[in-house]
Amino acid sequence: MDVRGCIEENSAGFFDALSQWLAIPSISADPAHHGDVRRSAEWLASYLRQAGFPVAEVLQTGADGSGLPAVFAQWPAADPSAPAVLVYGHHDVQPAEPLDEWDSPPFRPVQRDGQVLARGASDDKGQVLFHALGARASLAAGGGDAPPVTLKLLIEGEEESGSANLPALLEANRERLACDVIVISDAMMWAPDVPSMCTGMRGLAVAEIDLRGPDRDLHSGSFGGAVPNPLHALADLLAGLHDADGRVALPGFYDKVLPVSAGEREMFARLPFDEQAWLDEAGHSRAAVGEAGYSTLERIWARPTAEVNGMWGGYTGPGGKTIIPSRAHAKLSFRLVANQEPADVAAALREYAAQRTPPGIEATVAFGEPGVRACFSPVDSAAVAAARQAMERAFGREVLFTREGGSGPEADLAAILGAPLVFLGVGLGSDRMHAPNEKAEMALLLKGAEAAAYLWEELAAAAGDVTAAR
Amino acid sequence: MDVRGCIEENSAGFFDALSQWLAIPSISADPAHHGDVRRSAEWLASYLRQAGFPVAEVLQTGADGSGLPAVFAQWPAADPSAPAVLVYGHHDVQPAEPLDEWDSPPFRPVQRDGQVLARGASDDKGQVLFHALGARASLAAGGGDAPPVTLKLLIEGEEESGSANLPALLEANRERLACDVIVISDAMMWAPDVPSMCTGMRGLAVAEIDLRGPDRDLHSGSFGGAVPNPLHALADLLAGLHDADGRVALPGFYDKVLPVSAGEREMFARLPFDEQAWLDEAGHSRAAVGEAGYSTLERIWARPTAEVNGMWGGYTGPGGKTIIPSRAHAKLSFRLVANQEPADVAAALREYAAQRTPPGIEATVAFGEPGVRACFSPVDSAAVAAARQAMERAFGREVLFTREGGSGPEADLAAILGAPLVFLGVGLGSDRMHAPNEKAEMALLLKGAEAAAYLWEELAAAAGDVTAAR
Repeated sequence: MDVRGCIEENSAGFFDALSQWLAIPSISADPAHHGDVRRSAEWLASYLRQAGFPVAEVLQTGADGSGLPAVFAQWPAADPSAPAVLVYGHHDVQPAEPLDEWDSPPFRPVQRDGQVLARGASDDKGQVLFHALGARASLAAGGGDAPPVTLKLLIEGEEESGSANLPALLEANRERLACDVIVISDAMMWAPDVPSMCTGMRGLAVAEIDLRGPDRDLHSGSFGGAVPNPLHALADLLAGLHDADGRVALPGFYDKVLPVSAGEREMFARLPFDEQAWLDEAGHSRAAVGEAGYSTLERIWARPTAEVNGMWGGYTGPGGKTIIPSRAHAKLSFRLVANQEPADVAAALREYAAQRTPPGIEATVAFGEPGVRACFSPVDSAAVAAARQAMERAFGREVLFTREGGSGPEADLAAILGAPLVFLGVGLGSDRMHAPNEKAEMALLLKGAEAAAYLWEELAAAAGDVTAAR
Repeated sequence: MDVRGCIEENSAGFFDALSQWLAIPSISADPAHHGDVRRSAEWLASYLRQAGFPVAEVLQTGADGSGLPAVFAQWPAADPSAPAVLVYGHHDVQPAEPLDEWDSPPFRPVQRDGQVLARGASDDKGQVLFHALGARASLAAGGGDAPPVTLKLLIEGEEESGSANLPALLEANRERLACDVIVISDAMMWAPDVPSMCTGMRGLAVAEIDLRGPDRDLHSGSFGGAVPNPLHALADLLAGLHDADGRVALPGFYDKVLPVSAGEREMFARLPFDEQAWLDEAGHSRAAVGEAGYSTLERIWARPTAEVNGMWGGYTGPGGKTIIPSRAHAKLSFRLVANQEPADVAAALREYAAQRTPPGIEATVAFGEPGVRACFSPVDSAAVAAARQAMERAFGREVLFTREGGSGPEADLAAILGAPLVFLGVGLGSDRMHAPNEKAEMALLLKGAEAAAYLWEELAAAAGDVTAAR
């Protein structure tokens, strides 16, 4: 039986199992549901064992198990030199509020019009579970009793509440999690008829700038015009963060930036993108602006930024108060791309602030350590090529490339486990993740399973390239 | 008997009367003391009648007398065409807190070491009362039973709480307050051995700028780098308020500015000014900065400014929040000099904000109407020349010129009554006005009385020039 046939045959059972799992309200942000998160982990480990995984166990996290449990499963390839692949996903879900905006209860899954409706259907239970179905189909098609690659799953229970214990979990289990490729299940594609793969996520560095002028607020009548005003200095410092072309003006900021390749830019340009619809989604922003020479998608996915997230100082109450304030403050964040180092940005901001702060003002720059590195898999790497091939086989059409603008635990996975990431996901922007009436497209979940099955074949076929970095 | 002799002879009685008045805690900011403010007004009116003023009465203020009373007194010159002079001062005082920092109770006046110690000794009861002594000395020296000018006093009861009812009071009594010169008693000199006269006060315009970007705060991962951030726009707008020379960059801002005359600059330069001591007083500011080409005193007295008094927007709590905020705000104030119009500044700021706000950001500029015009009496005007001559006769040395950087009710007086201001005061920066242990120098109060007496002579002598504007 081929992969597709096996998946079709088992699809009803797959959705029944998914519905069972979705009925467990594994809300990690809500302590009242932490028992449910534990039940969810037990359910998954048990399901994976039934599905054939020789190892499937619940991993406690945090000091003395104070965190919420992850699930680890493993199915070794027959050939011990075959690539090892780690699938990352999460079994916890977002809170369901506001409850009265749901058409059906969030934890009573409904299958209707080709969709599964429930909290977690797309983010991320549906996309985790299709890997079990894909593994089964891969074995059925391959005819053996082991997958063509060593398959590992790490399914976290704290992703929706910040993944606080993930780095320690990865460090503590570095050996059993060792792999040649990390497959991210918590991922999206552009549209149902536009399959695509994410190849990277931006990193993050956050900072706070504090400026000190006089020891106390001064009367602007007595002193105005003759002593430095920290609000003026802050405005100048922040205004200078970008040049006239919208580029970040910190010294050396772009030195290590990996340029977007012509191939990737061409792929981005081929995505059907409705800029006006995107602006409407962006809080009805009235203009798309940013770094000169780049498209909107390039700006949010593949170019680094500096954003002022907040600033304050002086009198902010009703009416006026004619003072020169003593202090001024700003919070900043930098979105980073490969191969920028958060520590370099910290150093550049410190240098910039020192140079640009006028006489009589003292500047302090505090950085949120250690920051998050960007993660990125070149579109021509062996792992990405294999995943793209797998997606194209499943969807029967060309697969385009995207990236993500935000940061997630993925960067920790890549950094700590030292393996490249590929994003194999079938989530949609319209899946209402984190919102009422979350849903997953049933046909896409099955395509995900199919792509996963093909991915193991493709990675096994490209074993030499995939394991070259060992 | 000459003026000085008469003042010496009556000095003991003068200080006894002043002590009686200072014992009344006429704190206008504290409703519990509003009865005392009324008593203070009655005391003064009664005292002025005893001192010979044919008219001395309490004026109710506010709708239905809801304000605190002023005192009006009048002593007509024998010659009906003689100049009319209105002395402005106030009989209310600042609160006395913190009480435990006073060496003696604030409302039990003490005469010690040549000083009167009490709340209001310098600001402003001592400086109001010396005008009564000066009037008496002027008459004694002149030998007649009427002063050489028509003398009017308007002594307000709400100066320390904002003079809210003063403009209406002036409007309602425009005719009886009509005058050729307004003499401000609430004034300072540079130092006990450096007599000086203030010739102007800066005006004020206050504004708030509000910038709108997206309808809601946006995730900087998803949108950062591609939509306008109102905090960036605000920083740019505020940074652009000054050019590299520290000049205010609003269009036309300096068009109507009356330049500081060479004579006045020379007078300022001759004042013994310890910049380091001034910086220490300015909250230990670490540098004197401002408009290029002007000294610190010129900058705070005679040049207009733009100051950001407060700004805020986005996330300002602990930790970080990676947002592009929806809104950004700033409060600004402009110190104005003659002959700037607050309305012109409002128009210029609106024009500037409209020009400098980038695509996708909407700016709103709100102005505090109507603003305060600067007041200024040219150093070579007849009134200032007469007052300077009177001060020089009293002190026996050259009198220098100063200005004040702040704004007060004086601008309303000049505008509504349509007469030039002269500042005849003997307050000192070391008098601890508004602070514990306020004091006045007894010798200086007597010098003030002497200068006042000479001022009536001088103004009468210059009657042609003084009344030329009628």
